[in-house]
Amino acid sequence: MLTGCQLVSPRHTIKSMATDPPAPWRPIPGGITAPRGFQAAGITAGLKASGNPDLSLLLAPEGAVCAGTFTTSLVRAACVDLCAERLRASGGLARAVLTNSGQANACTGGRGLADSLTATAALADQLGLAPEQMLICSTGVIGVPIPMATLLSGFGPLVAALGSHQAAGDAAARAILTTDLIDKQIALEADLGGRRVRIGGMAKGSGMIHPTMATMLGYLSCDAGVPADTWQAMVSRAVDRSFNAITVDGDTSTNDTFLAFAAGEPLAPGHWDALEAGLTAVSQHLARAIARDGEGATCLIAVQVQGAGSDGDARAIARTVCGSSLVKCAVHGRDPNWGRIVAAAGRAGVPMDPAAVALWMGPHQLMAAGQPLPFDRAAASAYLRDRAAGAYLSDDTAEIRLVVGSGPGRGLAWGCDLSAQYVRINADYTT
Amino acid sequence: MLTGCQLVSPRHTIKSMATDPPAPWRPIPGGITAPRGFQAAGITAGLKASGNPDLSLLLAPEGAVCAGTFTTSLVRAACVDLCAERLRASGGLARAVLTNSGQANACTGGRGLADSLTATAALADQLGLAPEQMLICSTGVIGVPIPMATLLSGFGPLVAALGSHQAAGDAAARAILTTDLIDKQIALEADLGGRRVRIGGMAKGSGMIHPTMATMLGYLSCDAGVPADTWQAMVSRAVDRSFNAITVDGDTSTNDTFLAFAAGEPLAPGHWDALEAGLTAVSQHLARAIARDGEGATCLIAVQVQGAGSDGDARAIARTVCGSSLVKCAVHGRDPNWGRIVAAAGRAGVPMDPAAVALWMGPHQLMAAGQPLPFDRAAASAYLRDRAAGAYLSDDTAEIRLVVGSGPGRGLAWGCDLSAQYVRINADYTT
Repeated sequence: MLTGCQLVSPRHTIKSMATDPPAPWRPIPGGITAPRGFQAAGITAGLKASGNPDLSLLLAPEGAVCAGTFTTSLVRAACVDLCAERLRASGGLARAVLTNSGQANACTGGRGLADSLTATAALADQLGLAPEQMLICSTGVIGVPIPMATLLSGFGPLVAALGSHQAAGDAAARAILTTDLIDKQIALEADLGGRRVRIGGMAKGSGMIHPTMATMLGYLSCDAGVPADTWQAMVSRAVDRSFNAITVDGDTSTNDTFLAFAAGEPLAPGHWDALEAGLTAVSQHLARAIARDGEGATCLIAVQVQGAGSDGDARAIARTVCGSSLVKCAVHGRDPNWGRIVAAAGRAGVPMDPAAVALWMGPHQLMAAGQPLPFDRAAASAYLRDRAAGAYLSDDTAEIRLVVGSGPGRGLAWGCDLSAQYVRINADYTT
Repeated sequence: MLTGCQLVSPRHTIKSMATDPPAPWRPIPGGITAPRGFQAAGITAGLKASGNPDLSLLLAPEGAVCAGTFTTSLVRAACVDLCAERLRASGGLARAVLTNSGQANACTGGRGLADSLTATAALADQLGLAPEQMLICSTGVIGVPIPMATLLSGFGPLVAALGSHQAAGDAAARAILTTDLIDKQIALEADLGGRRVRIGGMAKGSGMIHPTMATMLGYLSCDAGVPADTWQAMVSRAVDRSFNAITVDGDTSTNDTFLAFAAGEPLAPGHWDALEAGLTAVSQHLARAIARDGEGATCLIAVQVQGAGSDGDARAIARTVCGSSLVKCAVHGRDPNWGRIVAAAGRAGVPMDPAAVALWMGPHQLMAAGQPLPFDRAAASAYLRDRAAGAYLSDDTAEIRLVVGSGPGRGLAWGCDLSAQYVRINADYTT
């Protein structure tokens, strides 16, 4: 039973949240090695007690530019400092990134930086690169140094395993995981300016933070050439609309890093907007996959806000709603609890007009003009229940749409429900 | 086994978190009616389906000044707007406050304000007050109007029940509760300037927000006269150090209100600092009681930060640590997980020096100079386990102390652990 004013069809906007990439982009098989010239490898070096793969390498072709975005936490790992400084000093030039999973190399003092320098120098030497062209990301337990002998002895097999085939990309994507339940990869393709352009990506993370365990890492490859400063600006905008728009538990990691490489024939500026659309789609796919893989989650929550004063304000409201423990519990309990949603929006710290609020949960409109509407509670609850039964990343998204005024600002955020399983996972982790 | 540098004895500072009031204040029996001249009442009017008490009245003596602090949410109830406006217009003069529990009167549009005006006018008339001297707080389900006939028919019995004895205060304290497991009251007494001064308080809340259910409400009475502007400044500072320093789930209510009345012989300015110390102690007691009564909580978490750039920065770090889902889960799991604590501190948005971090959990020092120390993990885990076995508000406080630099800033925050029971309570509330 839908009553009251329906401002716009909710289905129209819900489609924009789907995983279909925007034209002219289409999904293709593979991941980080789908773009021309990129090689990757993943092996088990013995850094993890579990015996799972733990060493990953991505090698970009000559001439690659690299854009990076990093955690804003003041407590950040030595490897993050090293990546940021090398990209700054080179003006966005790098060729390769090593990832070790098992030890985060955060809170390890001067030794942490020394180990990062030693590792990148040794691996760069084996690859015939200058040390400054080599980046490093670490993920795992905080406060524990990397076992350097084990790490260094893994470089030979790692370099030998480099390849541009899909299996090599798969291995690299698996070797960066920690608590993740599944690996996260995607590749898109489009014809731009008479030639084929591909973007590939891989990521890890199942919480915004797991300080004793892990972090969020993302990597992207692209076989179109773009000037370094343009590429960095594109990547920063894409990250704002993807990785910076997800939340699992509101905690920010010490190691969060996203590195995006672009290498290939220069793409004409007339196609940069199209390239950025693909870049954003790949980033959003990976970001949603991280949110969906949130610890203990049974569904993805997608919040769309419109009518805010600016896109930034809309994103802030969307992310606050997504991050509310009470909203997350309500979705988990299949409870169409509009009061918690609008109350979370009200504390987002940006302007909104309470009297203008309209709210939909999937196809069910729950509020108009700031007040509740009569609605079919059983049907709305069933809508939420069916999300948990949906297939991975297809129909398991609980969609919330919120109008907060008449401004031009629109924004999206993604999160996941909060289950008792989350508490069990995080109450029992290190002891 | 304690190793590494111990900056100061943790016991010294932990004492400042205890519930002993600062000298010259001492606890006395009773609550909101302990100060001279204050009357209160609580009855069951029939507003709640449960049949629990639901109507509460506090009446201050003639000449009372009243200071208020209110939710910063942009989505706030009509009664909050009315209280704020009346205190602004009168310059901080009010005589009484009515509280109805059962309906929050938020998101009820123009009717919400009209109902608040009707209720205060009718009750003021029965009390012989001007409507402008009457305030109203509502707590309960959002979006549901107050059943006005039931409310108005309760005013006769409510006024008849007014009294200054402890039973009247107890009844008032019970009638403001919603999901709370216990009522929250305190009274302190001191000899200031040759006479006895008393401060009483009562509060409700078991989450920073329950948008479909409730909110945090706090009331304070004092029988010393203080100019209205001085009183408001004192109250604002006390609220920053108490109610604004607690978090249960990071959500801010639509109805949060704290009202503090002072009425009696003027107190000489030389005793204002002592009065503020008592006011702060009462506020902190009530705030801690709310955090301890957090939904599903098994213990209180108290975080003390020192060495920050300012007291405000220290409080921001303390509250971020207290609010971290991962820290809350770790405490619940009896896991001395220092990595989650320091990572939360790093994302608080205020300056800190990661290399200076030192960290204690109870008597156990876990970090010094930004790096982990060897510590007795079993003993630290047992320390956390024993908190849940402690008595209410005595030894059930998990104490975390964090040094973040060498600045003068110090701050406290209180929260509670995150249990699977919290998820169950909040996943199943309205459906």
